[in-house]
Amino acid sequence: MISKTELKRLTAYKQSKYRNADSLFVVEGVKMTEELLASCFEPIAVYAVQSWFDENERLIGSKPMPFYEISNEELERISLLSTPNKVFCLAYKPQLKPIKYENNLTIAIDNIKDPGNLGTIMRIADWFGIKDIVCSRQCVDVFNPKVVQASMGSIFRVNVLYEDLENVLQSLPKNFPIYGTIVENGTNIYQTDLSSDGIIVIGSESFGISEQIKTFVNQPLSIPRLSLNANKPESLNASVATAIIVSEFRRRLAFEQNILLH
Amino acid sequence: MISKTELKRLTAYKQSKYRNADSLFVVEGVKMTEELLASCFEPIAVYAVQSWFDENERLIGSKPMPFYEISNEELERISLLSTPNKVFCLAYKPQLKPIKYENNLTIAIDNIKDPGNLGTIMRIADWFGIKDIVCSRQCVDVFNPKVVQASMGSIFRVNVLYEDLENVLQSLPKNFPIYGTIVENGTNIYQTDLSSDGIIVIGSESFGISEQIKTFVNQPLSIPRLSLNANKPESLNASVATAIIVSEFRRRLAFEQNILLH
Repeated sequence: MISKTELKRLTAYKQSKYRNADSLFVVEGVKMTEELLASCFEPIAVYAVQSWFDENERLIGSKPMPFYEISNEELERISLLSTPNKVFCLAYKPQLKPIKYENNLTIAIDNIKDPGNLGTIMRIADWFGIKDIVCSRQCVDVFNPKVVQASMGSIFRVNVLYEDLENVLQSLPKNFPIYGTIVENGTNIYQTDLSSDGIIVIGSESFGISEQIKTFVNQPLSIPRLSLNANKPESLNASVATAIIVSEFRRRLAFEQNILLH
Repeated sequence: MISKTELKRLTAYKQSKYRNADSLFVVEGVKMTEELLASCFEPIAVYAVQSWFDENERLIGSKPMPFYEISNEELERISLLSTPNKVFCLAYKPQLKPIKYENNLTIAIDNIKDPGNLGTIMRIADWFGIKDIVCSRQCVDVFNPKVVQASMGSIFRVNVLYEDLENVLQSLPKNFPIYGTIVENGTNIYQTDLSSDGIIVIGSESFGISEQIKTFVNQPLSIPRLSLNANKPESLNASVATAIIVSEFRRRLAFEQNILLH
């Protein structure tokens, strides 16, 4: 049970201005809560229905913060999901870490607005061992609840920083590899050399890489379009393109280092 | 201008039962309408605001069906999008073609419920020249408006058939390659042989490939997980996994046939 005042406070967190004012974000659902409690993030409180407590005894007390039992009706009131899933948590936004670009492979995101795309790109980075993502300031907020959900827990493992992308790219050493898919004049990604460090720039869903950022791309790539139709598809989804590019970088690295991957 | 009766009829098409009763589906937006009119599909009518007519003169009369001018308010009434984009079309559902599996690479989808995932997988198939997708009967409907939008026009080029997947797989010749990602015992996709024909089974977002279908997979694959964290991501998004697998099949084919791709 929670008080009416507390319920009102939690309901207010549906609005980003109240979450931002308190420097916190919302994590929901059984799986995401488990990931939160296993992470280095700082949870503030867990609000869950009886059945969650019955099934997750081992998690209670795993971190020093309060666990409240609430009713299904209360969960429905505070949840940001259309189908609430047993548990709702508040957690502090972490301190984001500066990125060391040299000797590292980093994803740079130019102006991605769709929360599902950012969350999915975080999962791809997490899967393929890319520690850092740098986003342009126009990108969707990584603590947007839809990004948090779409990341499926990768938000707790991948460092996402917001920067002026032009400044970042300008500050890199001369000839530092900056990759990006440029439809007009990219080199076939399957048949060109790929380095083990560099920046992979991913453009926006609608417009690709912006003109200012494109001037920094010194290793333009393309994903061969093998469409059989006279009328060809114009593009791939941004997270799909990211997956294909990152997968190819990782395949190459393993091949060159002669690592047997499992 | 359209009559009140017509407006009411179009508004009813927000509900799938009325669309299904008339064997039609809805196509919206400037880009999708252009793709519809360039396709072999049979459009029934186009309803657009003045500015669409001004910008798309060349399309008017391109197919023998009526074009109606409507107001922004009328478009908002009938549109299924949260942000309507100038034009709303009705089109007949096409006759789906039976699939010839032999000497062909086909995607089989087992129980995908998310419209965005199905639409995105259609874009991947279209991009990489895969003509056919066979869906289990539990999958989301390909004419669901969110699938249509997410396909970004690929719905007009990729043949999607609904079948009992077990029956389909059972009917194939012995040793016909059936690929699927099986986390527990798949072979690293980067380092195993891939054939130029076969079926690639994609499992559901939440449960992967179902137990019954798994028994047919004779070429289990895995996408190496290179995560640096002790706490590892459990899975990739279904369309992301599809992208990585299909890209690797196509890279291999090009490599083996020594084709220089552009």
